[in-house]
Amino acid sequence: MLKRYFPILEWSVKYDRDTLTNDLVAAVIVTIMLIPQSLAYALLAGLPAEVGLYASIAPLVIYAIFGTSRALAVGPVAVASLMTAAAVGELASQGTPEYYAAAIALALISGLMLLVMGFLRLGFLANFLSHPVISGFITASAIIIATSQLKHIFGIDASGHNILELVVSITAHLSEINYYTLSIGVFATAFLFWVRGNLKPLLRKLGLGPRLAEVVAKTGPVAAVAATTAVVWAMALDAKGVRIIGEIPARLPVPTVPTFDLNLWSAIAVPALLISIVGYVETISVAQTLAAKRRQRIDPDQELIALGAANVGSAVSGGFPVTGGFSRSVVNFDAGAQTPAAGAFTAVGIAMAALFLTPLLHFLPKATLAATIIVAVLSLIDLDSIKRTWAYSKSDFAAMMATILTTLVFGVEMGITAGVGLSLFLHLYRSSRPHSAIVGQVPGTEHFRNVRRHEVIVTPEILSIRIDESLYFANARFLEDLINDAVAEDPAIEHVVLMCSAVNFIDASALESLEAINERLQHADVMLHLSEVKGPVMDRLKHSHFLDDLTGRIYLTQYDAVHTINPHVANRASEMSRVE
Amino acid sequence: MLKRYFPILEWSVKYDRDTLTNDLVAAVIVTIMLIPQSLAYALLAGLPAEVGLYASIAPLVIYAIFGTSRALAVGPVAVASLMTAAAVGELASQGTPEYYAAAIALALISGLMLLVMGFLRLGFLANFLSHPVISGFITASAIIIATSQLKHIFGIDASGHNILELVVSITAHLSEINYYTLSIGVFATAFLFWVRGNLKPLLRKLGLGPRLAEVVAKTGPVAAVAATTAVVWAMALDAKGVRIIGEIPARLPVPTVPTFDLNLWSAIAVPALLISIVGYVETISVAQTLAAKRRQRIDPDQELIALGAANVGSAVSGGFPVTGGFSRSVVNFDAGAQTPAAGAFTAVGIAMAALFLTPLLHFLPKATLAATIIVAVLSLIDLDSIKRTWAYSKSDFAAMMATILTTLVFGVEMGITAGVGLSLFLHLYRSSRPHSAIVGQVPGTEHFRNVRRHEVIVTPEILSIRIDESLYFANARFLEDLINDAVAEDPAIEHVVLMCSAVNFIDASALESLEAINERLQHADVMLHLSEVKGPVMDRLKHSHFLDDLTGRIYLTQYDAVHTINPHVANRASEMSRVE
Repeated sequence: MLKRYFPILEWSVKYDRDTLTNDLVAAVIVTIMLIPQSLAYALLAGLPAEVGLYASIAPLVIYAIFGTSRALAVGPVAVASLMTAAAVGELASQGTPEYYAAAIALALISGLMLLVMGFLRLGFLANFLSHPVISGFITASAIIIATSQLKHIFGIDASGHNILELVVSITAHLSEINYYTLSIGVFATAFLFWVRGNLKPLLRKLGLGPRLAEVVAKTGPVAAVAATTAVVWAMALDAKGVRIIGEIPARLPVPTVPTFDLNLWSAIAVPALLISIVGYVETISVAQTLAAKRRQRIDPDQELIALGAANVGSAVSGGFPVTGGFSRSVVNFDAGAQTPAAGAFTAVGIAMAALFLTPLLHFLPKATLAATIIVAVLSLIDLDSIKRTWAYSKSDFAAMMATILTTLVFGVEMGITAGVGLSLFLHLYRSSRPHSAIVGQVPGTEHFRNVRRHEVIVTPEILSIRIDESLYFANARFLEDLINDAVAEDPAIEHVVLMCSAVNFIDASALESLEAINERLQHADVMLHLSEVKGPVMDRLKHSHFLDDLTGRIYLTQYDAVHTINPHVANRASEMSRVE
Repeated sequence: MLKRYFPILEWSVKYDRDTLTNDLVAAVIVTIMLIPQSLAYALLAGLPAEVGLYASIAPLVIYAIFGTSRALAVGPVAVASLMTAAAVGELASQGTPEYYAAAIALALISGLMLLVMGFLRLGFLANFLSHPVISGFITASAIIIATSQLKHIFGIDASGHNILELVVSITAHLSEINYYTLSIGVFATAFLFWVRGNLKPLLRKLGLGPRLAEVVAKTGPVAAVAATTAVVWAMALDAKGVRIIGEIPARLPVPTVPTFDLNLWSAIAVPALLISIVGYVETISVAQTLAAKRRQRIDPDQELIALGAANVGSAVSGGFPVTGGFSRSVVNFDAGAQTPAAGAFTAVGIAMAALFLTPLLHFLPKATLAATIIVAVLSLIDLDSIKRTWAYSKSDFAAMMATILTTLVFGVEMGITAGVGLSLFLHLYRSSRPHSAIVGQVPGTEHFRNVRRHEVIVTPEILSIRIDESLYFANARFLEDLINDAVAEDPAIEHVVLMCSAVNFIDASALESLEAINERLQHADVMLHLSEVKGPVMDRLKHSHFLDDLTGRIYLTQYDAVHTINPHVANRASEMSRVE
């Protein structure tokens, strides 16, 4: 029991020197990668840069205690930062203490929601986000994020939470471009793109081992940060309008008491829920992918608790919402992290950076961080997934495009809500009109197949219908219509046999529909029979009056049904097969 | 095409003298029943009594033109009237012109929504209301309606849209009881209950034919109206505090221009949608029940258009929302109505009443109308359905009780919304954790069954899993967890075979999950195979990369799969069967 809620008890007892070495190496690499990322994502969320460092200390230690994934690296990520900016931007203006307080409250509520969901084992809620919706949402978010960073590259003021606002705002301020800033921004972006694509192969050619090449390639952002900071400092470009990070207090995060303001809490409840669920879905898919590679298990409900605790930890140490990051988790895994202790060591690294590195970051230009963000998020744009979804399923494609367009035009909250709503709607629509077939006997066999696809024997007085879906409220009326219409069309019908081989479940609505069908058929002098009813469905039906009221019988097989109702059919069938 | 949208063109050409006679007789009986009902329901909706008559003229004629049901009688009904009172009561106080205008606008918008749904063929939207939710909602509404009418029986002032408000308000005013009113109310209620239960058998004993006895028994409310009106008039009880209907203008409804006020429209959009859907569901189930008795068809989408047009007609003639009434439709049917013309004739009857009968209704006590409503709605309380649902399905029961309690405590709109929400949630929850089984070969056969229920042969290196549900976003992650955990638990596994005999559909989310499973298994050196994939599912899969990436193969049957992967299994199985 204790081990379920504290997975650390499981792995810490087997912790040895080898594991320590592996974890330490991974921690160093992730720390180097995380410093510029955490500063950049804090800026993206509209917060002071150091808040990104604060959100990368306590949450990592807490996740190490509660998390079940061995390699997941939590911290600030791009999409959650954008969602934070959108949610908090509604309530306060950037740079005010209220804005920062709201961001902390967002992390707290989001964390508490995840904790509650974890204790209630509500991890399945994440299933409501279908893959195309998530993928579309991330693509659209990445486009918004990249666009929003252009202002830092151009060195202008601009704002907006959707693509239209951003483009209008950027266009309006284009005349104010600062060309020093633009030079730094373009250089940093180009350099980072080059690093991403070309540095590793180059290092390999120069004779470095694959793992070392990988590690060195990951230091690209740090190099860009160091180089551009040095240039700004050396040339005093800040005096020429290049915006820099400025004064960062060189200290560890201090315990923060989040605001307990009911108005604030209710205003951010919905965004907090959306951030929780989106963050959780991302976390789980990363964790599961990495766990499977080493044939390890993760516990999705415990992950809710771990992520929730990490967010509460972020809130009480002055941070903002965190989740499991994809690229840094992969780096952590590839660098050899064996246990969540690697995350705790990373936290130590970030804490050291907060204490000793911050004075060096004074002259860091915001344009460099914007370049880091742009290069990182452009890899999130998944056009291939759009193409694949179009090829595979038009309705999933519709949900995806609705998510992308709504997110771009109306912002992240509307976007994700529209996507989830449309997915549910399309699913219910689909199962409300299930596939069904009028079936007949395949000559010479006991099989019954669709009359439209096969040459089969039908008897005019028996209507055999097969439904390829569980019967529940969304398709109960469909069934009524189907049988009503079929019987009304053909006065010869005296028996209806419902073939239930694909019915896994009959809910109370469908049961009432069956009762209504039975009663209506009775008034029309038609008997209703069922065939091939599955065991669990039959067990349920025995708890109702349906079996007593049923005018016909329940048959083990469709063949039994037709054969018993009208023995001539079977004879005819066997004659036909003999003729053939 | 024209006939589809104007079903009148179909039946009117075959209209003959016999049909006319039948329709006229039915119309007379329904008119007698409808006069007190329409007055009473207008009062329930908080409107002047004559508005009930106006809502029973144009809508009936319009339904006769567009409706596909031969016997459906539309007009004001109890539940829609309560919903009207709840919706309009939020916006204006009873008795004001604004209140009346809002009720008219509600009918208009509700009608337009139904029309749009009809043209877009969105009749399936009504499926979102499961039977237990509808049944619970109607039961709770009936309790609220009956309670709300007690004020008229007691002759006191009281108000409230939920049971708590009503009980508190009635209790607070109990000291103001008017005993003349109470006497009339109690007498009328007792009389109507007696009529409902005992009059028809009594008339039969007195030698009346069954049909005539039925008809005479239906005149009970009219008799109560006549008797109590006469008593009030003769004893001048209105001067002693008995509230009466008072002056009703003796005229036909005049064309009304509904208010085009965007604020008003947006304020009543949600209630209008709820009234539309609840009314439509009621209409459809009545219409379908009656149609089936004579082996006729109704067109659910055309019914949307007919009901929508009827509501628009109600709005432009000064009426309020109408729907198909259950009891009056049954009376219409039993009285022999052959075509929707019976409804048009009823409209003529109500128009005559509006012109010539209204002066006689001046002294009609409101207590009598309240008694009519109470007796009518108490028959809507369906305790039996609660019991049956409890016995059959606990989750449906939960949705039902949530609907009942929310409706009672928070009112109709919250109630129906909670019910629909919970139904959807429970359905998704259920299908997000589908039934699945690890299967093995039944010795001596080619069948594969659940290892937990049957003595079967399994090979340690092959994991055979059967999923009893279509794969879609809500259960895609479940599948990932299932296979991940199973493979992580047992290092001997080298092959996973997914048996898809019950999978009717794979959406894009599930496809991505399958791809992820395939990739993760590949990293763990396990091959993934599928078996018994249905034709349409296979067609879909061919539009994706999955079949190219799949590490294993697709087998026609589970037996084929296991046999091909490891021929020893089949040998072992046949050996075992020989031993037995």
